[in-house]
Amino acid sequence: MDKYAFEYEMKVRDYECDIQGVVNNANYQHYMEHARHEFLESVGVSFSELHDEGIDLMVSKITIEYKRPLRGSDRFAVRINTVRKGAKLIILQDIYNLADETLSVKGEVEVVCLKNGRLTRGEIFDEIFKDLN
Amino acid sequence: MDKYAFEYEMKVRDYECDIQGVVNNANYQHYMEHARHEFLESVGVSFSELHDEGIDLMVSKITIEYKRPLRGSDRFAVRINTVRKGAKLIILQDIYNLADETLSVKGEVEVVCLKNGRLTRGEIFDEIFKDLN
Amino acid sequence: MDKYAFEYEMKVRDYECDIQGVVNNANYQHYMEHARHEFLESVGVSFSELHDEGIDLMVSKITIEYKRPLRGSDRFAVRINTVRKGAKLIILQDIYNLADETLSVKGEVEVVCLKNGRLTRGEIFDEIFKDLN
Amino acid sequence: MDKYAFEYEMKVRDYECDIQGVVNNANYQHYMEHARHEFLESVGVSFSELHDEGIDLMVSKITIEYKRPLRGSDRFAVRINTVRKGAKLIILQDIYNLADETLSVKGEVEVVCLKNGRLTRGEIFDEIFKDLN
Repeated sequence: MDKYAFEYEMKVRDYECDIQGVVNNANYQHYMEHARHEFLESVGVSFSELHDEGIDLMVSKITIEYKRPLRGSDRFAVRINTVRKGAKLIILQDIYNLADETLSVKGEVEVVCLKNGRLTRGEIFDEIFKDLN
Repeated sequence: MDKYAFEYEMKVRDYECDIQGVVNNANYQHYMEHARHEFLESVGVSFSELHDEGIDLMVSKITIEYKRPLRGSDRFAVRINTVRKGAKLIILQDIYNLADETLSVKGEVEVVCLKNGRLTRGEIFDEIFKDLN
Repeated sequence: MDKYAFEYEMKVRDYECDIQGVVNNANYQHYMEHARHEFLESVGVSFSELHDEGIDLMVSKITIEYKRPLRGSDRFAVRINTVRKGAKLIILQDIYNLADETLSVKGEVEVVCLKNGRLTRGEIFDEIFKDLN
Repeated sequence: MDKYAFEYEMKVRDYECDIQGVVNNANYQHYMEHARHEFLESVGVSFSELHDEGIDLMVSKITIEYKRPLRGSDRFAVRINTVRKGAKLIILQDIYNLADETLSVKGEVEVVCLKNGRLTRGEIFDEIFKDLN
């Protein structure tokens, strides 16, 4: 198993499943968003404080590979790593079924940082994550 | 069929259905909310303009009777009437399956009006709906 | 505080909030559904086993009073009691903000029991909940 | 403007927007899924009929680039093209804001075809889309 910087556990809710009895594809993105916010909160990022300083973090691209579907009541963990790539922060988010540790979904989220509405070179990311290294 | 003041047509999207193959109960509330906003827009209500004048409309209570479930791809209409009741506006919202005009859901939404954060006696409702009588 | 038969804790996810920064009204119904399923699971109800015996539990009516909105990251508890009323089971579901124990939402859910597609007199409910008394 | 094989128009519903007043990122995936199903329906694909023949179409990967957010009440079109790539079908789905024809979201969806639970070489895709060429 890879080493991850952060892990967040959740449980599938029945209303997140569709006719096939599996989690609807878009809901994995909801899981990823919620885990990402928990992660950023854990390293001290406050969206509202950043916003008050004129700084906004925005998702510019998302890639999701669907490996094995989750089903109602499944417990799973969203595991997270980050990589800097030029002006972007890449957040790697893998979702594992906790019943057997199989990989369910492999996600990659590109985040850019705007200051006063203009794209920055991403210096803020180094500052936010300096304690993770 | 009752006479309604407003009607809005929609189609069930597959992701709104759950394992049983029918629309998940909470999604009817989404349909009702969207149809209500379309209705208020049609009589000239702008939430943002009202908000700028310090006026906020808020749902205080909702009642939904489930009669017959909708399924994937079903076309349906949300039909709306309003009744004043003291300080409240009651919005009656019935959902019909357009395939056979059967009643799917019977909804009743109580709305109150706040001015500068304080409950009003609902005078604003008479003004908004004066052209419907 | 009332005595409840069951309690389930959750946390608001940002994507569940709308433009006003509060949880969208329909999402409380999602919270209630998920807590209800956890509750039924805790007393040994298996929807799939019941279904295999020709028994289906269905929500026939829902009433929700909105008291105080929840916001992003709020922790809350869904607290549950049940009452038999003729052929129906009434599930009372109150949502409390755990920060200050204020009541956020007061819900009442009517459930009926079908056997082979026909409405029963609800004998099954007595059996399911016999250990709660 | 590129030539597209299919177009489906929709309107943003307020409950699909988040605190920032824009459509929540995961909801674009819902729009894409619904438009995709409408597209497949338009070329005569019936998921249930295929399923009865032991054939299942599954999304294996999704990539979404976020260009310009949609807001409440915005009208938009999901425009679709398809490309065969080995055993996969690539469905290109671009979302345009109809107010000014700006590109809002650029999506790419990889679909694989299973027969009796085993990956096929995708011959079915040629058959389904033979009339589009």
